[in-house]
Amino acid sequence: MTTTEAYAGTRARDARPEVVALADAFATRFPEIAIRVPSAATAPYRYDRGTAPRVESPISDDEHGPLVALPGTPEQVQDVVRLAAEFGVSVVTRGAGSGLSGGASARPDQLVVSTERLNRILEVAPLDEVAVVEPGVINAALNEHVAPFGLFYAPDPASFEISSIGGNIATNAGGLRCAKYGVTRESVLGLDVVLADGSLVSVGHRSIKGVTGLDLTSLFVGSEGVLGIVVRATVRLRPIPVARQTVTAFFESTPAGASGLAAITRSSVRPSVVEFFDEPSLTGIDAFSGSGLRRRGASLILVELDGYGIAEQAHDLTVALEAVGGTVRVESDEDGAALWELRRHGRGFTEPQWFVGEDIAVPKSRLAEVYARFAEVEQRYDVAISAVSHAGDGNLHPAITRPIGDADPADRPAELDEAATELVRIALGVGGTVSGEHGVGTVKLDWAALELSDRNRAAQRALKAALDPTGLFNPGKAI
Amino acid sequence: MTTTEAYAGTRARDARPEVVALADAFATRFPEIAIRVPSAATAPYRYDRGTAPRVESPISDDEHGPLVALPGTPEQVQDVVRLAAEFGVSVVTRGAGSGLSGGASARPDQLVVSTERLNRILEVAPLDEVAVVEPGVINAALNEHVAPFGLFYAPDPASFEISSIGGNIATNAGGLRCAKYGVTRESVLGLDVVLADGSLVSVGHRSIKGVTGLDLTSLFVGSEGVLGIVVRATVRLRPIPVARQTVTAFFESTPAGASGLAAITRSSVRPSVVEFFDEPSLTGIDAFSGSGLRRRGASLILVELDGYGIAEQAHDLTVALEAVGGTVRVESDEDGAALWELRRHGRGFTEPQWFVGEDIAVPKSRLAEVYARFAEVEQRYDVAISAVSHAGDGNLHPAITRPIGDADPADRPAELDEAATELVRIALGVGGTVSGEHGVGTVKLDWAALELSDRNRAAQRALKAALDPTGLFNPGKAI
Repeated sequence: MTTTEAYAGTRARDARPEVVALADAFATRFPEIAIRVPSAATAPYRYDRGTAPRVESPISDDEHGPLVALPGTPEQVQDVVRLAAEFGVSVVTRGAGSGLSGGASARPDQLVVSTERLNRILEVAPLDEVAVVEPGVINAALNEHVAPFGLFYAPDPASFEISSIGGNIATNAGGLRCAKYGVTRESVLGLDVVLADGSLVSVGHRSIKGVTGLDLTSLFVGSEGVLGIVVRATVRLRPIPVARQTVTAFFESTPAGASGLAAITRSSVRPSVVEFFDEPSLTGIDAFSGSGLRRRGASLILVELDGYGIAEQAHDLTVALEAVGGTVRVESDEDGAALWELRRHGRGFTEPQWFVGEDIAVPKSRLAEVYARFAEVEQRYDVAISAVSHAGDGNLHPAITRPIGDADPADRPAELDEAATELVRIALGVGGTVSGEHGVGTVKLDWAALELSDRNRAAQRALKAALDPTGLFNPGKAI
Repeated sequence: MTTTEAYAGTRARDARPEVVALADAFATRFPEIAIRVPSAATAPYRYDRGTAPRVESPISDDEHGPLVALPGTPEQVQDVVRLAAEFGVSVVTRGAGSGLSGGASARPDQLVVSTERLNRILEVAPLDEVAVVEPGVINAALNEHVAPFGLFYAPDPASFEISSIGGNIATNAGGLRCAKYGVTRESVLGLDVVLADGSLVSVGHRSIKGVTGLDLTSLFVGSEGVLGIVVRATVRLRPIPVARQTVTAFFESTPAGASGLAAITRSSVRPSVVEFFDEPSLTGIDAFSGSGLRRRGASLILVELDGYGIAEQAHDLTVALEAVGGTVRVESDEDGAALWELRRHGRGFTEPQWFVGEDIAVPKSRLAEVYARFAEVEQRYDVAISAVSHAGDGNLHPAITRPIGDADPADRPAELDEAATELVRIALGVGGTVSGEHGVGTVKLDWAALELSDRNRAAQRALKAALDPTGLFNPGKAI
């Protein structure tokens, strides 16, 4: 799309005057920067996946979204930031919009800076085991690009096929492989960031080690767009393992499987992935996908091993899990692939449900206890709760549901969110956190206040103010 | 030592009035907090290992060190910080004093807060794979304590037998195993920190994952005492590997060995440790320790493998290193242990030398190039340069020397530091950093300015000011 085309949308009649003035300034002073004027066409920018209406309705002519800028270079990002500051319009940076906590949601009086045109893989350096990428590169595209070098980029949020590296950095995205390979932070060595004054600053390094000054790289990772706009990232790559092996352990009940997880911790094996499925998760997958998991047991620990000595690893894991009552099978490559496909895409509903997806993390010794407390929450709030967990790092994703039945889908019962809050309190009670990997955004702001002390949050706000004194970037989010 | 004993030193006559007043206030208002008054006995607190005089001389009665406080609880640390702020005396936090960049050096007009009495291991939780420790715990003591659980704490700076976890956190200490297990930052999950206003704040989490708010934990790690005082840390433990294996590869020259390092990167093997010794390092170790390394070759890649499939790993590594001209041997346990002992303690001088030890890190593909440029620096500054490297992560430790001979040892030639600066410029020229793992402290402040842009350093100072507006903590250091 050319700039002219981009600007050609029909501007909403009731757009804010300062936003209209900003749009006009883009067109006259920076015609090379593509924009989309506030209009019905930009309405989707009001939401990410965590805040989009669960019941879709057509956009009326009266509704409109924010102004959107689509810079194609770091320098254009600088121009965008300076112009937004000049007009007093706050900035929401947006990657692929796949976030689940509202971090990329924008009001009509804001400017969205989309990184979708900053999507180049600038360099792959196999002997340094790094890649240099722009933020709009899709996670899966980076992995496809570096695979011929025998390398992979480890962070693998469930959204890896659609989420951007910049968005992954903004949320410090996790995924399945984190217990072994770390979260996004462990794979980001350096960043180029545009600050609120429009300056471009390089932080971090290209070597694995480097301790010159404060670790600004880690501070920007996971900062959910409140400190600056990442325009370039140096990320760490790793060699593709010499072997991978899927192992399943089915148990006779959810508590038996949840307790069985500790056997992995007590063993010498550290799998690349450990996923735990409780009974309702298995039943739900079978109903939605036609699989037959529940016939094999009432709960499932699904493991991926990788690296050297894979047979020895599988043996030790089998011994450990059989000792706690697991029915263990070393899967064929084909069966293993089918299981991971079910893990990623096998869940869904056979009838309409109200739904809340949660993202709590707890010390992993407490996982079984958290599962055991689902029943009381289900009963109290008349909801159903199931959870698949990244059990290797204590990260649960409870799904809280209630059938819609004959009710109006828009008439969402408050009990779902109340049940979610109850789960959050349970997680905090065992030393956990309100967000394992999705971020705080707007959705979890109240819960963050339950976890973090006033002094902690005051410190966070002070750090934000130090880098962004006027509150230009993503105000009201994350902290 | 009781408080009374601690206070019993003879106070230096010329101690600053505000420091004297502060010492008196401790004695009257917080008699339970042990202190050491400014005196000849506290003179060693003026230095860490990076700034201590290279030529020892007796301390005269005219010299004195700073006031030292030795709090035994987090609450006492809070009292100490509040009192120091009240009297306008700045605070230098000190662990074991083993730092190499001056971060813990204190002037006589400052207050040293020593963490040596905060030395308890509060908890080991094998099923969470974490330990909770106070900052004064010695790195090696933590590992001894957790070994019976089958666990280890991965960060292993060369100083691990004498350095404290708090000091390791302050410098984001590296070590030998970092390429595989990460630096200190990757092993710190949560911290309790006393801030400049005396408040105690908990940051981070006990689960592996957690993204609630800005990553303050990572910001404190490596902040060299300028942001707060760590009083408790939750650190990550890992299972002791099922096997370890030492492998050597000798080469016919330094360039051949340095170039051979890339063969490891191109292979599928990721050793836990990869150390590279150039020719003068081997010669020097033989001369000092009576070993016979140089007879086996002119440079050495010393590798530790660990984990499953150790024989297969050793095989693949052997094939890779023989293909680039290495003479490879899989060492016996006994010979392997002897080699690691030489690595850690085998270096020294057989005749008096002026000496500068450096700590640069470069993208690992550039290691061979950096070694190749030693000759020009040796010639220009009339010094000898040798370097052992943590080659797996690109971290070189060049030793720059010149024999003292008949000269006055105190008459240290400027060329040593000039040669060090030249090496720093070479590292920066290939995309490296001025400090791989020792920190900036005072020693590398000028060099940090060569690496970091003005805007970067301004951002760091703004962050410091946000948490410590009066500059109470370690002023003039690190940033």
